[in-house]
Amino acid sequence: MTLDLAALPPIGYAERPAAVRERLGDATLLVSTPSNIRWLTGFGGSLGWVVVAADRLILVTDGRYRERATATVDAAGIDADVVAATTRAAVRDAVVAAAGPGPVRAEADHLTHAAWTDLTTDLELEPDDATIVALRRIKDAGELARMEAAAAMADAALAAVAPSLGDGISEADVRDELERLMRVHGADGPSYPTIVGSGPQHGARPHHETGRRRIVEGDTVIIDVGALVDGYHSDMTRTFVVGEPTAEQTAVYELVRQAQQAGLDAVGPGVTAGAVDAACRDLFASAGYADWYLHGTGHGVGLDIHENPFAMAGSSVELQVGDVVTVEPGLYRDGFGGVRIEDLVTVTSGGARRLTHLSKDSPCLPSRPTT
Amino acid sequence: MTLDLAALPPIGYAERPAAVRERLGDATLLVSTPSNIRWLTGFGGSLGWVVVAADRLILVTDGRYRERATATVDAAGIDADVVAATTRAAVRDAVVAAAGPGPVRAEADHLTHAAWTDLTTDLELEPDDATIVALRRIKDAGELARMEAAAAMADAALAAVAPSLGDGISEADVRDELERLMRVHGADGPSYPTIVGSGPQHGARPHHETGRRRIVEGDTVIIDVGALVDGYHSDMTRTFVVGEPTAEQTAVYELVRQAQQAGLDAVGPGVTAGAVDAACRDLFASAGYADWYLHGTGHGVGLDIHENPFAMAGSSVELQVGDVVTVEPGLYRDGFGGVRIEDLVTVTSGGARRLTHLSKDSPCLPSRPTT
Repeated sequence: MTLDLAALPPIGYAERPAAVRERLGDATLLVSTPSNIRWLTGFGGSLGWVVVAADRLILVTDGRYRERATATVDAAGIDADVVAATTRAAVRDAVVAAAGPGPVRAEADHLTHAAWTDLTTDLELEPDDATIVALRRIKDAGELARMEAAAAMADAALAAVAPSLGDGISEADVRDELERLMRVHGADGPSYPTIVGSGPQHGARPHHETGRRRIVEGDTVIIDVGALVDGYHSDMTRTFVVGEPTAEQTAVYELVRQAQQAGLDAVGPGVTAGAVDAACRDLFASAGYADWYLHGTGHGVGLDIHENPFAMAGSSVELQVGDVVTVEPGLYRDGFGGVRIEDLVTVTSGGARRLTHLSKDSPCLPSRPTT
Repeated sequence: MTLDLAALPPIGYAERPAAVRERLGDATLLVSTPSNIRWLTGFGGSLGWVVVAADRLILVTDGRYRERATATVDAAGIDADVVAATTRAAVRDAVVAAAGPGPVRAEADHLTHAAWTDLTTDLELEPDDATIVALRRIKDAGELARMEAAAAMADAALAAVAPSLGDGISEADVRDELERLMRVHGADGPSYPTIVGSGPQHGARPHHETGRRRIVEGDTVIIDVGALVDGYHSDMTRTFVVGEPTAEQTAVYELVRQAQQAGLDAVGPGVTAGAVDAACRDLFASAGYADWYLHGTGHGVGLDIHENPFAMAGSSVELQVGDVVTVEPGLYRDGFGGVRIEDLVTVTSGGARRLTHLSKDSPCLPSRPTT
């Protein structure tokens, strides 16, 4: 399995400037968030600014990126001018010239306070963090195909690695082999630093930093892994028990599995993110495990590994067809370890379609495939 | 070669709160930049805040990180309280409670304008981006040992991979093998996405996104690679020509080599970053290549891959003993490709000591070691 990007549906860059302009009306938007710039133009360099106005689309970047920016914008099929400047001061001046005069909307959730303050000496800024975020939530066929391909690469990698968890290898060994296999399958790399949290202490930290601890019999092992394909992320977690699970391990695993299924069942258009969170959280609470649940139930995924919508307790944000979100309840306690199960789903008119497919029926290690 | 962190000198976390307090006097500092938090406490989670005041050091994080934060602070040997909160709103309120009342210094170069504006409803903020940045520039023995170990891993990986550049492999193949080997040697991963830019177009983009292009005879191949060890980065670039270099390739390579040596020779305590840049830039200009040079000459490296000081044209920032900086001039032109040579050095009382040691005498591929 390797990936041919050209065989996937294209990403609909060409339609995006018009979609942004429709929301902006006569206003001018200064885009600085790298993932928003990539969504709008395909440009993935680390330093760029985009001005969107009724009469112009201008990508400002530094000299290092001139060739790449021009090639990217051409390939995306959008009508944009590329302005490249060599120094930070020149980039800043080019941004001011491209954006002004008149009021300019800018991304207060991305620009630092120092950058914002600096720009206000020349521009009349007002915050706009909603316009592109709202459009980005809804994934098109090209984006979904990339995320589905990424999810399949992580599925395949973890299916291959899971049988070896009982072989006395370390957390880092597991991570390295997962990341190697995802690349073999065509990923550009891991979607985020792969988490392998094993045993009574590491497993109890939801975002454990994968270390050199050797995995041993009796451990719970949380593995949180995703692949990156053409800028798009996948996200999945599975938990295993090495050896015969104890009664407590079995009970906690089964509770998380039921909660995760309840969360998945809750997903659908018009449902609030808070309702998805509550579907998991209420089940934990009624089983007496409320204080073992240390985080929110999910988040959007796309060009960012964490993006809108966020399924936190009480969120009133409504899911829409085309959203891609995780459902990832977990229970953690120092001395026990932890269990988390996470799938990536896209919201459909009928509810949700899973992008991650690896089995989650049991915490037992799968046996090695017979050859 | 694998790395035993315990055998390296420890990082001097225990002394850092006092060093910060000495600069602060009676003021309170709210630290939000992740790398500044790591420098100060050892905590490397993605969500944290630290309050430093004369009478308290408080690390605020979210519930996911409670165990890890407490363990890290204990290991660092610093006297800090850990406060963990479960929701974003609760984290924000905990930060306000820890920081106030009274004026609070905060990081305007890191906090978003939206976050800053939100906090000013409860706190009287003033910008302070200099206090920790100034202290962080000077690396201690533990930090230098980690960066030197990281540099040695990248040296070894590129030495092993370079002979295969003529074998018809792709840019991505080179990257994958470099990153695999660095991990074999003990790296936590690559220091940044490894750049492999080959041929007349990709090689002409200083920050090319490594792709699936196959490397062929006649290419210039820029390889920019570093390793990550315990949070610390290395950074190195070498350029190769596949096959017999042309007269132009030889001339451009030699010019970059001389400019890079001139830059290295310029480094020393009390020298401005601008003078290091000028040492390279002037040599290019006098050879008629000024417009082939598309970026600054270097930057500091540490917990961030790009940090102070930056060796941009005209910078008046003076280098100090203990700074770790890159010297990385390059020449680029579409149709030709590119040449960049980069070393990582630490400033010493006598000038500079290189941390990267791979040969750069010639653009020709090294031959395979005989076995």
